[in-house]
Amino acid sequence: MVAKDIIAFTRGVPPAKSFPREELITCAERVILADSARILQYGTGAGYRPLREYIASQHQVSTDRILVGQGSLQLLDHLCRVMLKQGDSVFIEQPTYDRTITLFRRAGAKLVGFHLHLGQMDLDKIQSALEKGPVPRIFYVIPDFQNPAGSTMSLDMRKDLIRLSNHYGFIIIEDSPYRQLRYTGDPLPALFDLAPDRVIYMSSFSKLISPGLRTGYMVLREEMADAVIRFATDTYISPSMFDQAVVREFLNMGLLSDHLHHLKRIFYPRLQTLLDAMQNHLSPLGVWTKPQGGYFVGFFMNEELKPPSINQADQFGLALSHGEDFFIQPHYHFLRLPFCALSQDQIEAGIHRLKELLLK
Amino acid sequence: MVAKDIIAFTRGVPPAKSFPREELITCAERVILADSARILQYGTGAGYRPLREYIASQHQVSTDRILVGQGSLQLLDHLCRVMLKQGDSVFIEQPTYDRTITLFRRAGAKLVGFHLHLGQMDLDKIQSALEKGPVPRIFYVIPDFQNPAGSTMSLDMRKDLIRLSNHYGFIIIEDSPYRQLRYTGDPLPALFDLAPDRVIYMSSFSKLISPGLRTGYMVLREEMADAVIRFATDTYISPSMFDQAVVREFLNMGLLSDHLHHLKRIFYPRLQTLLDAMQNHLSPLGVWTKPQGGYFVGFFMNEELKPPSINQADQFGLALSHGEDFFIQPHYHFLRLPFCALSQDQIEAGIHRLKELLLK
Repeated sequence: MVAKDIIAFTRGVPPAKSFPREELITCAERVILADSARILQYGTGAGYRPLREYIASQHQVSTDRILVGQGSLQLLDHLCRVMLKQGDSVFIEQPTYDRTITLFRRAGAKLVGFHLHLGQMDLDKIQSALEKGPVPRIFYVIPDFQNPAGSTMSLDMRKDLIRLSNHYGFIIIEDSPYRQLRYTGDPLPALFDLAPDRVIYMSSFSKLISPGLRTGYMVLREEMADAVIRFATDTYISPSMFDQAVVREFLNMGLLSDHLHHLKRIFYPRLQTLLDAMQNHLSPLGVWTKPQGGYFVGFFMNEELKPPSINQADQFGLALSHGEDFFIQPHYHFLRLPFCALSQDQIEAGIHRLKELLLK
Repeated sequence: MVAKDIIAFTRGVPPAKSFPREELITCAERVILADSARILQYGTGAGYRPLREYIASQHQVSTDRILVGQGSLQLLDHLCRVMLKQGDSVFIEQPTYDRTITLFRRAGAKLVGFHLHLGQMDLDKIQSALEKGPVPRIFYVIPDFQNPAGSTMSLDMRKDLIRLSNHYGFIIIEDSPYRQLRYTGDPLPALFDLAPDRVIYMSSFSKLISPGLRTGYMVLREEMADAVIRFATDTYISPSMFDQAVVREFLNMGLLSDHLHHLKRIFYPRLQTLLDAMQNHLSPLGVWTKPQGGYFVGFFMNEELKPPSINQADQFGLALSHGEDFFIQPHYHFLRLPFCALSQDQIEAGIHRLKELLLK
């Protein structure tokens, strides 16, 4: 098979056509005219105060707890460097966001993973790991439309994790960049909303406005906020005031709500097309999540299938991520299928090619 | 003395009135219209390629060696984390940039400082430290208009450091954010230009366009470039594409040259006013550098004077930095005097207040 047009099921990026270009031009002009003495100058390591205040009011916490920076991953790096010592235990879902695995490992953490299967971790396994010890410093989860699995954590599991956090003293990091991209069903409460004293919440405007503006944030616990913010200051003095001001203006002008509707109108049909195509082509070959939002469907291949290599995929006109990057133990029967940046035609064709690749 | 208008000799920040507001609005609009699919999207950890290409051509190196990010300090943090092990030796000038001291210490480096006095380090002391060992991994210098001293490294010292770097195998980091802000005299060759294989060059557009855009860069050595760029990618995926595109457009439109003239027309009279005021008021109280460019005059107080505390300075209507922050051993008879963000009247009044404070 010769296919020059590679269909990329690789990274979770938004489609370029979804970017609010005209609005961002307006925002950039407005903020430079209104506040250049602040936004073209050095700021504080914590971020642009008007944006911090907006986020604080959204989460009903003190502004002092809000850290804004160049994407939430960068902020997680600060947090790791302040919170973790070599050999500290960190619990994660499996699969989970590959870049987070890299950061935790870089910080010297000993990772313990709990399989999501098609949705929920096994509570018994978590409890027995906690009883046996060591108790982790951090339990990192992506409860809404998980990256890469696409699953959503049940309300029971949210409550159980908080109960265990209270009992054993670990901190929950709730990574939630996709939460506002719900296409169907009713939202569950964020872990942060259930227990704002047990949870560090992190999110981003990358998936809501533009990744190129690199604006993510973290709601820190009160007792560690000063230390993490000082660490950020020591690392780069301040993050981009300009980008943050543009984001703040976008929010201030009330543009986010319409833009979210616009994004969902683009993304939801793509998700439906993907799920239909998988139903039509991949049913005998594995199982997959049925996400209610976000960017990804997680495809768990049957164990008897030989997982395709990147090179083999390329020959079939597909670009795929290494499924095993999302796991801490070797695990080759997983594929992350991001759908937001692909047209419905590309999704159809891509899943057809995937079937041929798996059956070759 | 009651002074409500505190005169701040603290941070090296540009004056807000120097920011090219209209030009940046134009640049922001142009780049969004021209290249939104790239600049509003995730990029690579190395930075926005057109800006990297511009910097590479300025320094006559391959684009692969250029790392652009959220200020050069952040890039130095990456470099430390890739290059340094706990206990590695790093040589620095004394005084030197306080934030760099923090980063090196955070990386576990053992710092060895060489006093600048009014201009040059003592070559004999450097040579005997190298003979005695341990040889450092890095020798970090700010050769042009040093922060905080204001001094410029002689051509002989530049050549000597390169000779020693070749002989002993350490890498020179040349931090040069002020180099293009020369008000008098002729430029000396950058260490990087004398020995591009021995020197990592770092600089920034913070002092040339706007700090709020947080765009700094590093010219890496070829053999380490991939590792440092991968580290940057692992930390934040990519730096702000938008900020970098705005900077690139500013350069592309040929605006930097006029803007530099504009900055020098603001800053040079301020430097002259500062030096005159010091001559008139502080002559018996210490010695100071006579910078040919940059942001700072370094004032070395007589040892018999009692260094003023921050609180005492406040009572005299002055904000001062802790002089000792720029040293690794306690050293209290130094003040950094940044002049770019102060009017000539403020500088006059500030030095008069400083005299009264020191003689109180």
